Amino acid sequence: MNNTLATIDTPAALIERSRMQRNIARMQQRMNELGVRFRPHVKTSKCIAVAKAQRDGGAQGITVSTLKEAEQFFAEGFTDILYAVGMAPHRLQHAMDLRRRGCALGILTDGVESARAIVEFGRANGEVFDVLIEVDTDGHRSGIRPEEDALLEVAHVLHDGGMRLGGVMTHAGSSYELDTPEALRAMAEQERSGCVRAAQRLRDAGLSCPVVSVGSTPTALMAEALEGVTEVRAGVYVFFDLVMRNIGVCTEDDIALSVLTTVIGHQADKGWAIVDSGWMAMSRDRGTQKQKRDFGYGQVCSVDGTVLDGYVLSGANQEHGILSREGAPDTGIAARFPIGTRLRILPNHACATGAQFPEYQALSEDGSLETWGRFHGW
Amino acid sequence: MNNTLATIDTPAALIERSRMQRNIARMQQRMNELGVRFRPHVKTSKCIAVAKAQRDGGAQGITVSTLKEAEQFFAEGFTDILYAVGMAPHRLQHAMDLRRRGCALGILTDGVESARAIVEFGRANGEVFDVLIEVDTDGHRSGIRPEEDALLEVAHVLHDGGMRLGGVMTHAGSSYELDTPEALRAMAEQERSGCVRAAQRLRDAGLSCPVVSVGSTPTALMAEALEGVTEVRAGVYVFFDLVMRNIGVCTEDDIALSVLTTVIGHQADKGWAIVDSGWMAMSRDRGTQKQKRDFGYGQVCSVDGTVLDGYVLSGANQEHGILSREGAPDTGIAARFPIGTRLRILPNHACATGAQFPEYQALSEDGSLETWGRFHGW
Repeated sequence: MNNTLATIDTPAALIERSRMQRNIARMQQRMNELGVRFRPHVKTSKCIAVAKAQRDGGAQGITVSTLKEAEQFFAEGFTDILYAVGMAPHRLQHAMDLRRRGCALGILTDGVESARAIVEFGRANGEVFDVLIEVDTDGHRSGIRPEEDALLEVAHVLHDGGMRLGGVMTHAGSSYELDTPEALRAMAEQERSGCVRAAQRLRDAGLSCPVVSVGSTPTALMAEALEGVTEVRAGVYVFFDLVMRNIGVCTEDDIALSVLTTVIGHQADKGWAIVDSGWMAMSRDRGTQKQKRDFGYGQVCSVDGTVLDGYVLSGANQEHGILSREGAPDTGIAARFPIGTRLRILPNHACATGAQFPEYQALSEDGSLETWGRFHGW
Repeated sequence: MNNTLATIDTPAALIERSRMQRNIARMQQRMNELGVRFRPHVKTSKCIAVAKAQRDGGAQGITVSTLKEAEQFFAEGFTDILYAVGMAPHRLQHAMDLRRRGCALGILTDGVESARAIVEFGRANGEVFDVLIEVDTDGHRSGIRPEEDALLEVAHVLHDGGMRLGGVMTHAGSSYELDTPEALRAMAEQERSGCVRAAQRLRDAGLSCPVVSVGSTPTALMAEALEGVTEVRAGVYVFFDLVMRNIGVCTEDDIALSVLTTVIGHQADKGWAIVDSGWMAMSRDRGTQKQKRDFGYGQVCSVDGTVLDGYVLSGANQEHGILSREGAPDTGIAARFPIGTRLRILPNHACATGAQFPEYQALSEDGSLETWGRFHGW
């Protein structure tokens, strides 16, 4: 017997395939219009089937957040991979192994100390690494600011040390804190112009800078022009989530990932239904807490995906979720959602919720489910 | 070559074995003094080696939060198992399968509707389930309050329906919101007396109630007497964490679980070191946020486990952690923690952090590491 939404065990991580395909097409079309290559960040899904759908949609290469992802995707035929986390010296051996097996793996640095470690290891082992310099265009995390002396210093360490200077990359992660089109467009332009400025400084110094890579889901979707940029990276757009809904780059109806759950109890006088999706299923991510609308641990939908407005997962223990209505308690909740009722919960943060599951259940429009594995760990 | 803290890949979930053994001994000794059986909740570790250490320490039976845990522990010879989450009707088949393979699996209900589903399934399949009634002694989640009519109603549905009334159980989860010995002792007494009262009501009605099961780590450790209680359950005590430190039932030096991490970059002017443990390693749990001391995403320690007072993981993205000093920025941080430096981070919530890893690295006092698997998913 094939599994269906009525028979599969819960909690389960559902991917609504038609929504995912729509999200992929939307992003790719935007990138095509802007005239840039698109390199999806596969840390969101960690799933071969999802990355293949992105590639089939027109993506060129992938971005990864761990060398385990690089390993797994390379084993499935993805050869153009950017490891977009600053290189730790102890991982250089693994990176070199991947390259020597045929993986075009780009690595990242944002400081003289780590650049020197790359050069030293590369020289000792006769390996010419492709290295991108991480640029900080919004102050949210790592990278060198476009005007800093360190930018040229790092570039010279790499170049003079015999490494291949692949280019510059930046990620405007602070776009996640915005929620108006104007602010997002401005952040996209700040991300673009800062990264292009860094590239220009390298070129002005006679250094090569083939790649100018920018991106986050909000800035990718809101950028009006990407002059000087060669590629864009984005991850969560493939599923979207409630954080992205609050930022304003999708609606609830675009969210392709949800958690299928079962009602296991009630506290009727409090207006609570207890479901079998706690934080182990949803993750502890409370990304909407400080946004314009707080969805608790998630937005409740009927099993067919219809948003049940006002019903949220208001609390979560490890394997228990508390489902309630915002505002006045729904004292008829036990009749509305009897024991055994199946519901879907839209997540705050698709990357975090997906990571709680060893596999996805990919739902087709005919109601059939297909199991898609995902990687866990490092 | 055997792995050591200097060679193993990061992030890694370390268990300091001597601390874990001390935590196990402390809890078991307390239970022995109070004259009750101890049934650890293995949802914290989801690890056979940890549960065996608890059993070797004197524990009798285990508590699980999913049937997958029941399955995995049963396969390793644990036969006395309480599934401490309200029974969903669609899981009765799996529960029966486990019982028929020799697992003494107890299941839970807290309402007439679910009790009827258990009876109906049991009768249709000739199975006499062992069923405990969940009692609500603190209003934090599920269960029937000791004085509610529903208590006897559910008991009669089960008894008259031919099921075995195993007893009553409660979990005072709201103990996690307290942080003084007085309040914790009072909550332990509230948990005990409420559960014993529920048991008494069943016995007064001529029903059997062999098991009176209570517990949470804070109440188990702070209870002064447990008259009428037959067994205690607790989970997180085996590792402890910063939430438990703030509640007041352990110190930082008791915390047996930490995340080994590597410094991968700096923003020296901001006083930041960037490490390779983001929320994918630590989890998104911010359990100390509303407690007496907020540790961000975790307390930083040197690689040998010494607490570096004032240094916390102040921010976390998926694979990036931002490490900084509380108060004035440490502008000498790049020299203090150069690229490649290894550190340990104590977690807010051991159950959530452990769940991010496919395995633990168990550290012996001689510095050797042993890999202990843990289960993932449902």
